[in-house]
Amino acid sequence: MTFEITNKDAMGRIGKLKTPHGRVETPTLMPVINPNIDFIPAEKMKRFGAQILITNSYIIYRSGDLRDMAVEKGLHRLLETDLPVMTDSGSYQLMIYGDVEVKNAEVVKFQQMIGSDIIVPLDIPTPPDADYSRAIADLEITIEREREASRLIKESNSENLLAIPIQGSTYSELRKRSAEESKKIDGDVYPIGGVVPLLDDYRFSDVVRIILDVKSVIPSSYPIHLFGAGHPIFLSIAVALGCDLFDSAAYALYAKDDRYLTPYGTKKLNELHCLPCSCPVCSQYSAEELLKIEKEEREILVGEHNLWISFEEIRKIKQAIKENSLFEFVEKRIRSHPSLLSSWRQIKNYSTLLEEYDPSTKRQFFYTGIESIYRPAVSRHHERVKNVELEKDEYTISTSSENNSDFYLKPVFGVVPAEMNEVYPAGHAEMPPVEYIENEAVDVAVNALRSFLRKHHDKKFIIRADGVWREYLIELPDNAVVE
Amino acid sequence: MTFEITNKDAMGRIGKLKTPHGRVETPTLMPVINPNIDFIPAEKMKRFGAQILITNSYIIYRSGDLRDMAVEKGLHRLLETDLPVMTDSGSYQLMIYGDVEVKNAEVVKFQQMIGSDIIVPLDIPTPPDADYSRAIADLEITIEREREASRLIKESNSENLLAIPIQGSTYSELRKRSAEESKKIDGDVYPIGGVVPLLDDYRFSDVVRIILDVKSVIPSSYPIHLFGAGHPIFLSIAVALGCDLFDSAAYALYAKDDRYLTPYGTKKLNELHCLPCSCPVCSQYSAEELLKIEKEEREILVGEHNLWISFEEIRKIKQAIKENSLFEFVEKRIRSHPSLLSSWRQIKNYSTLLEEYDPSTKRQFFYTGIESIYRPAVSRHHERVKNVELEKDEYTISTSSENNSDFYLKPVFGVVPAEMNEVYPAGHAEMPPVEYIENEAVDVAVNALRSFLRKHHDKKFIIRADGVWREYLIELPDNAVVE
Repeated sequence: MTFEITNKDAMGRIGKLKTPHGRVETPTLMPVINPNIDFIPAEKMKRFGAQILITNSYIIYRSGDLRDMAVEKGLHRLLETDLPVMTDSGSYQLMIYGDVEVKNAEVVKFQQMIGSDIIVPLDIPTPPDADYSRAIADLEITIEREREASRLIKESNSENLLAIPIQGSTYSELRKRSAEESKKIDGDVYPIGGVVPLLDDYRFSDVVRIILDVKSVIPSSYPIHLFGAGHPIFLSIAVALGCDLFDSAAYALYAKDDRYLTPYGTKKLNELHCLPCSCPVCSQYSAEELLKIEKEEREILVGEHNLWISFEEIRKIKQAIKENSLFEFVEKRIRSHPSLLSSWRQIKNYSTLLEEYDPSTKRQFFYTGIESIYRPAVSRHHERVKNVELEKDEYTISTSSENNSDFYLKPVFGVVPAEMNEVYPAGHAEMPPVEYIENEAVDVAVNALRSFLRKHHDKKFIIRADGVWREYLIELPDNAVVE
Repeated sequence: MTFEITNKDAMGRIGKLKTPHGRVETPTLMPVINPNIDFIPAEKMKRFGAQILITNSYIIYRSGDLRDMAVEKGLHRLLETDLPVMTDSGSYQLMIYGDVEVKNAEVVKFQQMIGSDIIVPLDIPTPPDADYSRAIADLEITIEREREASRLIKESNSENLLAIPIQGSTYSELRKRSAEESKKIDGDVYPIGGVVPLLDDYRFSDVVRIILDVKSVIPSSYPIHLFGAGHPIFLSIAVALGCDLFDSAAYALYAKDDRYLTPYGTKKLNELHCLPCSCPVCSQYSAEELLKIEKEEREILVGEHNLWISFEEIRKIKQAIKENSLFEFVEKRIRSHPSLLSSWRQIKNYSTLLEEYDPSTKRQFFYTGIESIYRPAVSRHHERVKNVELEKDEYTISTSSENNSDFYLKPVFGVVPAEMNEVYPAGHAEMPPVEYIENEAVDVAVNALRSFLRKHHDKKFIIRADGVWREYLIELPDNAVVE
């Protein structure tokens, strides 16, 4: 097995990806190394937490010197690193310049020859909102090239891993078709491509939909790479939706214009009164001091900060997976921008998919807002309560856990049988009281109560309701009395 | 002026407090230095960002050696620091042990003698939920002692600042009375005391209420110290409610039991798979490595992390004030625990007070959840729209900014005249679309629309409504037609 999953939460997971140059713990971020530019060197990347790097084989291929050196010494000695290195194929250049001077087989073989750990075929990253006919034509070429790459790798019997990118522009059906075709090809890593323009435009809803479309097709055991995504603002969402690998050129590109990454957005260095970070750069310099440092050195310092904060975010996400609090973590992060908030709230339309992935037992349920209602723990609870069988003729339901009752009524969860009131999720749920919680959280509970009462129409229920609850407990079936 | 306010946001502010040992920029955290314990020394505190320290004059007073040294060399040379130092009086010991062996005048004079920058009288920190009679009796003694301290400081003509603590247990009226009496006394810093047991029990709602009660009495120009509060989980809320100074013994106390501070709660070191931080400690060690270091050294390292992360939080808060995004910042932080969420949502009951403080012009309004509706920007907008005068007979209202209309209908803000649709707040508001926003956000808009239509009952309104909006636009007055 190339990819082994060790921990799960939401649709996210911690995994181990086996590469020719060693194991990589996912989720992780691959810093982009541009072999033409002397910036933060590959050898220094471990210090920030990098376990794997990514570089562009097309750039190496096109530059006589680099190419000769790579062919002679291999990719890893060219970059002076013993970390695994993934190589891109020129697809990015294809997207930017519309053309590349290399053929698929040629660039795949070149990546093999120089010893890339993860090879990418020359897929076509169709931009968002492309004509449907173009998107489909591009996709057909992409699929053909992926098949060719797979044949080449198999023939040579080499140990390099193969990435099978998934394209299809912003069309759900094409993304799904691309995923269907990709999963038939024997790959090791499944990148979702063509999302960078969407992320740059804060079109997070489109990216969330694309990821969910792909995940609804690709088996859970396959590692997913969200190609070109590396800004910490989106990492936790992408991981929670089941992405495992990310790559960041942002750390370097943003540093060029004094753009300082944070998990809640990008800041211009000169807008910062205080540095909102304690990384080795930000604990040594103030914002004012950084601005006084000459450009070239400052660019490296900002680039280093950008790496520190990106890997800090990766560690926070991994910690959240370990303690099964990834939903809670994401629900905080999406408050960094209203577009993130709406993008995440689309999960309410994918409850079946989420239920397939999310572990059914956790320690705690912290309510943070209406999107907490969309967690699988809630729908599973409602399902379980539907299957409860009743033997007595009369039951008590209380809105307060202090009263001893047969059932309890809770926001979000609705009817909670006494035996479920001690265990996860309803029994381990913390949420604001009815007067401070969102209407939706009470409505979902009252609707569940109504269904429950109707289902058990031959039983009688005495509901002991406190304060604000009484305002909500209206239009109940006749077999219930509110006391 | 001892305290000068330079920037404002929500009820928070950045200020400069002038002390005998120099200016301090608030909000800030005063690390507690225990002169009896050899931990992180005072001289090192600047490195973490400390601008002022706090120590306990009662401990110094009671220990023969320390006392002699303090009297001889002064407090600052005893602690080996040139930073300003506030001194507590023994009130904490009074709360813990119920008794102290010193009189108010004695400990005030001692603090003066050793050169404390901020002197605290021997106030009585009545615990939460104390008997009302006890709370009132304690408060009377506290007020008497504060008056005595003020007289002593004035008589001696010394330059030390004087803190006038506000007590009153969990009783709103006593907190207000305490604040009323305190503001009559000529003090420099106004600490809110007796809240530590509430914070320890996650009774954040009580603390928020106490702060708001006090702030409704104490003039905005007085610096407020939330005594004993230093955990980063509550700092942003406290600052947003108008607190300026904090003190942290937590950094050291928590480090003793390997408790690792984060702005979203305390973690036990052995529960951490990854360190969710990039401070000089956490960027050098992994969680596993830290656990292998011997206890004494590890305690210092965890203590250092605790300081780094606490001051990082202070810098983030200051940055948020500078860019007028403190509401947005707090609304993220309160998602760390449902008790924080409900505590903050109490601001809906204090809208007049909030409006007094919060600046009326900002750059942006990011919606994060129902508590965004409680921001003064929203109530001010609704007030302004009430005063709009109409001259034509017929008007158009559109739910989409793409249509050219006289008015626009937006969640949260409701009716937005075209000329307000380009400016803060409604014009600079980012929020999820109607299908992904909370019911409350749409309800407040539709209710405002209904009032507006009723007020202008002699005019006709044509409402162009998109998709989901149409479901909400029901039961409108007769002068409106939904198209």
